[in-house]
Amino acid sequence: MGEFELIRHYFAAAACAQAAEGVVLGIGDDCALLDVPVGEQLAVSTDTLVAGVHFPADANGRLLGQRALAVSVSDLAAMGATPLAFTLALTLPDVCTDWLADFTAGLDSMARHCGVRLIGGDTTRGPLSMTLTVFGRVPSGQALTRSGARAGDLLCVGGPLGNAAGALPFVLGERAAQEGAAELLAHYWTPSPQLALGQVLRGLATAALDISDGLLADCGHIASASGVALIVEEGRLPLSAALRACVGEQNARQLALGGGDDYVLAFTLPTEKLDALRASGQPVYVIGRVEAGQGVHLQDAEGRTIKPPLSGYQHFGSQCD
Amino acid sequence: MGEFELIRHYFAAAACAQAAEGVVLGIGDDCALLDVPVGEQLAVSTDTLVAGVHFPADANGRLLGQRALAVSVSDLAAMGATPLAFTLALTLPDVCTDWLADFTAGLDSMARHCGVRLIGGDTTRGPLSMTLTVFGRVPSGQALTRSGARAGDLLCVGGPLGNAAGALPFVLGERAAQEGAAELLAHYWTPSPQLALGQVLRGLATAALDISDGLLADCGHIASASGVALIVEEGRLPLSAALRACVGEQNARQLALGGGDDYVLAFTLPTEKLDALRASGQPVYVIGRVEAGQGVHLQDAEGRTIKPPLSGYQHFGSQCD
Repeated sequence: MGEFELIRHYFAAAACAQAAEGVVLGIGDDCALLDVPVGEQLAVSTDTLVAGVHFPADANGRLLGQRALAVSVSDLAAMGATPLAFTLALTLPDVCTDWLADFTAGLDSMARHCGVRLIGGDTTRGPLSMTLTVFGRVPSGQALTRSGARAGDLLCVGGPLGNAAGALPFVLGERAAQEGAAELLAHYWTPSPQLALGQVLRGLATAALDISDGLLADCGHIASASGVALIVEEGRLPLSAALRACVGEQNARQLALGGGDDYVLAFTLPTEKLDALRASGQPVYVIGRVEAGQGVHLQDAEGRTIKPPLSGYQHFGSQCD
Repeated sequence: MGEFELIRHYFAAAACAQAAEGVVLGIGDDCALLDVPVGEQLAVSTDTLVAGVHFPADANGRLLGQRALAVSVSDLAAMGATPLAFTLALTLPDVCTDWLADFTAGLDSMARHCGVRLIGGDTTRGPLSMTLTVFGRVPSGQALTRSGARAGDLLCVGGPLGNAAGALPFVLGERAAQEGAAELLAHYWTPSPQLALGQVLRGLATAALDISDGLLADCGHIASASGVALIVEEGRLPLSAALRACVGEQNARQLALGGGDDYVLAFTLPTEKLDALRASGQPVYVIGRVEAGQGVHLQDAEGRTIKPPLSGYQHFGSQCD
């Protein structure tokens, strides 16, 4: 089976699954064509997942397909955008039809969940990796960026933290299954992009992002882009019962602060907007505040500064010679 | 140096080099934001290059940066689109600052040449590969697709063919440099996307694509999408003097028919539009015609059918067990 047949056969479901709003021309030509409605802008984000770095090389194809798309769409949620479409560049060591069937089934399932349509891509031979580029639309001027946080704002997150990091020993087979493990594994493999929350935050939040590299590291991006200090109150971190059961209270906090892959939104909110947000029914946990200054500062219940436990996930650890 | 510093430092030039027409928000947030003018559509294409598959693993960083972007932008040329922006997902085995400096210099050089701005991406650790997604704009309804060729049209290309395939033995170090080799190598490493030709073809050509997998294979895509037969007249294939000098007339024709990586446009044109196209000053070589039927057929000067020498480049050659 040649490259073109391969693409057509296995990706047909994802390419045709969704209504074509905004998609003028989909997969199969030199380019796809998108229509962006008047008064809206196009949001674009690219993410790569590499076998052995971002997921185990023997990962289940279906789970991997779900996760890869969810991770990318989460960036649209962080901008308050409505998902529209995605491209997939898939590099495979060989053409294994069983794996491809599983992978595309997972991709298709998440595509339906998020309302995105596959509009193009590339299939190449090489070490297993995938790059997804996602497209969404957002009313002009209303996208949530990282740069608008102001002193006096509340610092909030959209859900419990640390679950994906807590799942990692189970993902890697380093720990045997136990109570709570299944819930953590679901957070790792099928994160649910907080699209509804992101859209509600338009006009309410002053800055937002999705937590992929760990709470402290990602808060650092808001602090830096906005020119403010973020204060995280350790005692207010939302922790799931499953995470507490699997790793204990103390470790759970460490994972909530430094563990990656949560794909929960973190955002800053003027105090007077909190009631409106709560009235929307969307999840909101106040975990700290914005002050004048710079950097991210962790405090205990008495307001004393605590040294952060981890520096957040970094893809690169060394330079070559 | 962490991932974020790495991206900021080395990609700053490409991110800032170009005027920001249409780019509302560039690199550094969860998503980039693009404005698409009223009456225009957004063209999107994704391409992956893998070390050892699409380029030698020890390739010069600067040449690789130029080539990677040119290859992707060529898809915009094939749609008649005007380049706007691109994202880069770069996977590196380690962070080598010398290589990164070379690579980004090459990328920046081609970005300026094509008028595109780097608006986002991802940098990950793993086997060397890169996925570029390019964005262009095209007047609504005027994009050049593969599906409009009609019986009676002429089959044309925008320049000599086979040069990049002829360069391959020199790229791989299998042949020592000789007269003409430098010209072929330039075609391989720095293909020039035929953007001006693509834009002139809007309203003239009935179908178009850029030749990446070989003339015959790519003509097959037009034939299939348009439901017609394409007749290629072997004697009319444009061949460069450099290619003839390096491989001889007979081999040059084989490479022109089956060799990949040309990134020259192939298109179908109603006969009555040929004068208008020639008057534009853009390069045009008539190499055959469109007939009722299906598939691609090669003919000699007397109109006799010839068996094609090669089946075109395929990324995958085998299935796994």
